[in-house]
Amino acid sequence: MNIGIVGLGLIGGSMGLDFRACGHEVWGVSQRSSTCETALEIAAVDHASTDFATLALTDVIFICTPIGLIEPTVRRLIPHLRSETILTDVGSVKASLVSAIAPLWPNFVGGHPMSGTAESGIRAAIPHLFVGNPYVLTPIDRTPTAAMTIVANLVADLQGQLLYCQPEAHDRAVAWISHLPVMVSASLIAACLNEADTEVLTLAKALASSGWRDTSRVGGGNPELGQMMAEYNQTALLKTLYAYRQQLDAMINTVEGERWESLKTTLIKTQAERPQFLRD
Amino acid sequence: MNIGIVGLGLIGGSMGLDFRACGHEVWGVSQRSSTCETALEIAAVDHASTDFATLALTDVIFICTPIGLIEPTVRRLIPHLRSETILTDVGSVKASLVSAIAPLWPNFVGGHPMSGTAESGIRAAIPHLFVGNPYVLTPIDRTPTAAMTIVANLVADLQGQLLYCQPEAHDRAVAWISHLPVMVSASLIAACLNEADTEVLTLAKALASSGWRDTSRVGGGNPELGQMMAEYNQTALLKTLYAYRQQLDAMINTVEGERWESLKTTLIKTQAERPQFLRD
Repeated sequence: MNIGIVGLGLIGGSMGLDFRACGHEVWGVSQRSSTCETALEIAAVDHASTDFATLALTDVIFICTPIGLIEPTVRRLIPHLRSETILTDVGSVKASLVSAIAPLWPNFVGGHPMSGTAESGIRAAIPHLFVGNPYVLTPIDRTPTAAMTIVANLVADLQGQLLYCQPEAHDRAVAWISHLPVMVSASLIAACLNEADTEVLTLAKALASSGWRDTSRVGGGNPELGQMMAEYNQTALLKTLYAYRQQLDAMINTVEGERWESLKTTLIKTQAERPQFLRD
Repeated sequence: MNIGIVGLGLIGGSMGLDFRACGHEVWGVSQRSSTCETALEIAAVDHASTDFATLALTDVIFICTPIGLIEPTVRRLIPHLRSETILTDVGSVKASLVSAIAPLWPNFVGGHPMSGTAESGIRAAIPHLFVGNPYVLTPIDRTPTAAMTIVANLVADLQGQLLYCQPEAHDRAVAWISHLPVMVSASLIAACLNEADTEVLTLAKALASSGWRDTSRVGGGNPELGQMMAEYNQTALLKTLYAYRQQLDAMINTVEGERWESLKTTLIKTQAERPQFLRD
């Protein structure tokens, strides 16, 4: 199959490596010619260009740009495409993107591979990045079945664990497990930095260990990504933030009221239920 | 030196291994004779007993029981001790313990080694557990200098990174970096479990990955420990919880008001400042 990949970073580059290993021919497009050269050098693509016109004869195009560039990329791609070409994306928020893109290009299937590493960029691309990890497709009523099947087969080539859901259900789920944790974790760091007693703050910095490290990790991550999550998934994120604040208030009331058995009951529950969210 | 260790778990057992390796003679006491046998078997102690009287001739005793048993242990120990014997503890909260124990036994130095693993119990004891990690001592005005010096030298034998501070400053610092994260993280799990839409909750469980795993880790930890932290450090913990709620509210207002540049500014700051809390 002739596959196009727009945006040659960690995700796009890793897809290229795996699709080529499966025998597909891969056309990559990046804004930067240096990225195109690197993609060719590491054999993530068969062809690379800064020109969308080179994708004219591809069967399926994966849009792997940052989330804010997905819709603009589709608009710029459209003049070059045959109507049979299937578009799919890898954006981490789906409802707003699907409702913006589906009217522009009916042959579109929203997607979200739940894969990544701490690295980014084409040099970070690795084979087998998607193996065993969830890969969500979010078709809507008018998504052509044929398009969905073809994208699903390509996800199978990547050995992703295929899941289907509505774009809105996807966004509410990722708000819980991905976007809310960023806000919770960043608030922890920010609150601590506001400690007015410098002796206490200095001591806190000296004493912080693995508990702090883990709880603060995603709050100390990429600021642009955090902003984009909030911007593109505002409705679902706010819903989880309100629910979280309510839970936090209950926790504060329990500690204020010295209801230690009740606190322990909550902690027994969170300890018992957490493993349901862990795959290994 | 003749060293006593009461409570032969991960901390007490690991101390015994290192003190013996430094040439000290170690007397261990545990409530359970099976633990005494294991401690002897793994060579964490030279002598082991369930009887406090066996510690009568020791120079320094480390009380390594769970936090709720530290004061009761001191009261039971006292009838057996010579007045020169130095007592120190490893409890993770200091102000309430120091003010309870100092009047009972003047030759007392509060301590807190910031070391641990995911394991617990005597079988989890390992050599070099304390190497390079902060070990806080919290002397007060009337703590004898000689006692403090002797405990400090033993911390040096463990190769811990010695820090001194007031018990209250210690408790406020660990509230920020250890106890607040548990409440923040447990609230995240509890809030998520309250999601009423079962499709969304099932999907959240299926999609959760490393971000969720890290942010929820300490909230899914030992419930008794979480309860004890809150109970023994209530005042300092509540102070951090109020500050955290205020920061969370500011974050919610920013997302509600779509002030994306302001959100990004906060996330740039948390990303930039977080490494000050990480030692490696």
